[in-house]
Amino acid sequence: MASLVMQLLGCDVAALNTVHFSNHTGYRQFKGTRATAEEITALYEGLTQNNLTDFDVMLSGYAPSAAAVEAVGAIGMDLQRKAETNPGSFFWVLDPVMGDQGRLYVNDDVVPAYKHIIRHADLILPNQFEAEALSGIKITSLATLAEAITAIHSTYNIPHVIITSVQIPTLAANTLTIIGSTTRSDGSPRLFRVDVPALDCYFSGTGDMFAALTVARLREAVFTAPDPALRTTKSWVSRDDVPATELPLAQSTVKVLASMHSVLERTLEVRNREMKSEAVNGEDGSEEDRRKRAHLRESKAAEVRVVRYGGLLRQPEVEFRAQEWKKEDLPAQFR
Amino acid sequence: MASLVMQLLGCDVAALNTVHFSNHTGYRQFKGTRATAEEITALYEGLTQNNLTDFDVMLSGYAPSAAAVEAVGAIGMDLQRKAETNPGSFFWVLDPVMGDQGRLYVNDDVVPAYKHIIRHADLILPNQFEAEALSGIKITSLATLAEAITAIHSTYNIPHVIITSVQIPTLAANTLTIIGSTTRSDGSPRLFRVDVPALDCYFSGTGDMFAALTVARLREAVFTAPDPALRTTKSWVSRDDVPATELPLAQSTVKVLASMHSVLERTLEVRNREMKSEAVNGEDGSEEDRRKRAHLRESKAAEVRVVRYGGLLRQPEVEFRAQEWKKEDLPAQFR
Repeated sequence: MASLVMQLLGCDVAALNTVHFSNHTGYRQFKGTRATAEEITALYEGLTQNNLTDFDVMLSGYAPSAAAVEAVGAIGMDLQRKAETNPGSFFWVLDPVMGDQGRLYVNDDVVPAYKHIIRHADLILPNQFEAEALSGIKITSLATLAEAITAIHSTYNIPHVIITSVQIPTLAANTLTIIGSTTRSDGSPRLFRVDVPALDCYFSGTGDMFAALTVARLREAVFTAPDPALRTTKSWVSRDDVPATELPLAQSTVKVLASMHSVLERTLEVRNREMKSEAVNGEDGSEEDRRKRAHLRESKAAEVRVVRYGGLLRQPEVEFRAQEWKKEDLPAQFR
Repeated sequence: MASLVMQLLGCDVAALNTVHFSNHTGYRQFKGTRATAEEITALYEGLTQNNLTDFDVMLSGYAPSAAAVEAVGAIGMDLQRKAETNPGSFFWVLDPVMGDQGRLYVNDDVVPAYKHIIRHADLILPNQFEAEALSGIKITSLATLAEAITAIHSTYNIPHVIITSVQIPTLAANTLTIIGSTTRSDGSPRLFRVDVPALDCYFSGTGDMFAALTVARLREAVFTAPDPALRTTKSWVSRDDVPATELPLAQSTVKVLASMHSVLERTLEVRNREMKSEAVNGEDGSEEDRRKRAHLRESKAAEVRVVRYGGLLRQPEVEFRAQEWKKEDLPAQFR
């Protein structure tokens, strides 16, 4: 998913696959293998010995063990080190894939492994659960969310954060809220939010899609920013006088969400047609068999149609808007 | 390479990677792992158990051992078997990757493994060396080439063959000649040739690119053929009255070569600019070190710019033409 999305947006991609699975795990069963830390490291050594490490951006996602997270971390750190004399020439987007909806789906030791490596990343993309795990703050309101982001900025020295899905009782049920922030020089967050209509379907791979689109769109936003010095600024951190909604991170996020919404909306249409038109699941087998067949059929029908709607990734049909946070939503110290 | 090219042409791809390498082998050094036959089989089992095997076309390429070739063969045979009651609904394109330029680059036992499985494929794409290995006929002229193709049609019952690069003394030096044939019902070949200008550079991955483009373009040609029954004919074999140059295979091949020529021509321009503009290789190290650095630099500069020129894959800038063979080029029995 991530490689193809970046390629469709015009990026040349060197893919280092950390798993080799037959299908996405939303099907609830799959076959295949996971890359070991040694295999990950060896592939990077191969790139290094062939002078193939002049990357502009690295996107790291799911890694199947704490050792694999550390191996990915070592790659990110090496690339940061190589770019040290040339600020802004390399940028690391890290998706700290650990769990969702209150449940960890990696080994316990993956959490400290991420806590160790994320301080070398430029942008991290946790979901709400992962943001809680990293910040140690339970997110129950926009105020606690702001505290969690502030803690992530300060504890790990990470300049950019996007929380990719937020579930808070006070938010509208049919809306997805995405929160982002680029730190100011005093360490305070510059918070923006984007609200988009929710689609009534579970799509697998949307996290990867968000991350991949962000790689392409953030770099584009930085390279077209009014301040030409930004692209040669370490970690692409905008000057303090740039308001939250005019951050390249905010501008990128609205474009990313527009692309996703357009493609997912079309996918949903196709999915609904398929679910209606296809043969029913049959009556044979146990109740459990029938449920399983129905789940497989639904999973396949909901596969995101990235190839078919690649044009919409580049030119989405909708437009969203980044908003400043309302003062009353902020914790007391930022009002 | 192959997955991306098919995706850029609008195909949904399930990729079963048979190797996980850091870079293509043209760099002369690489790191990574090869999939075992068991791993290949397991991935297909994963697809099967999730009802994800409703493929229209399968493209199989390099497999790293005889056992891996057999595992790939078992997948192709299973898909053919599933499609038996629905002729034309599945098509297997097989690139029998074994060697080139008179040199085998796989183990000796891979050759008999391919001889065993290719009889289940619909189209094979050997280069001249591989066609010799499969047919047992040394290709030294167009007449012996025709004999080799005829032997492949008859020995292995393969309906479609394309020889992807032909080096014969009588052919022009600055021209690449591609030969194809779809068998007639009497087993005789229907030979066409396409001549395209050669580019003065070695590009890695052009075999994969040819195969991937052929998957998309052949299916397109079959589904737009004047005879609507073709798409429901086993192996998409045209009626005997369709002349060689009007075969979907011929029409596909001219489009494939046009796409390749357009992208490679642009790649060559970019490569030449890079080779001129980039810093020289430096004088330090031994003569061997300098040569190695120069080779790595050249290899990188010649990477095919698939993402950048994806538009040209879909809409090439040039047009080629399939030609009937001249009578005097054919072996005596087909004149």
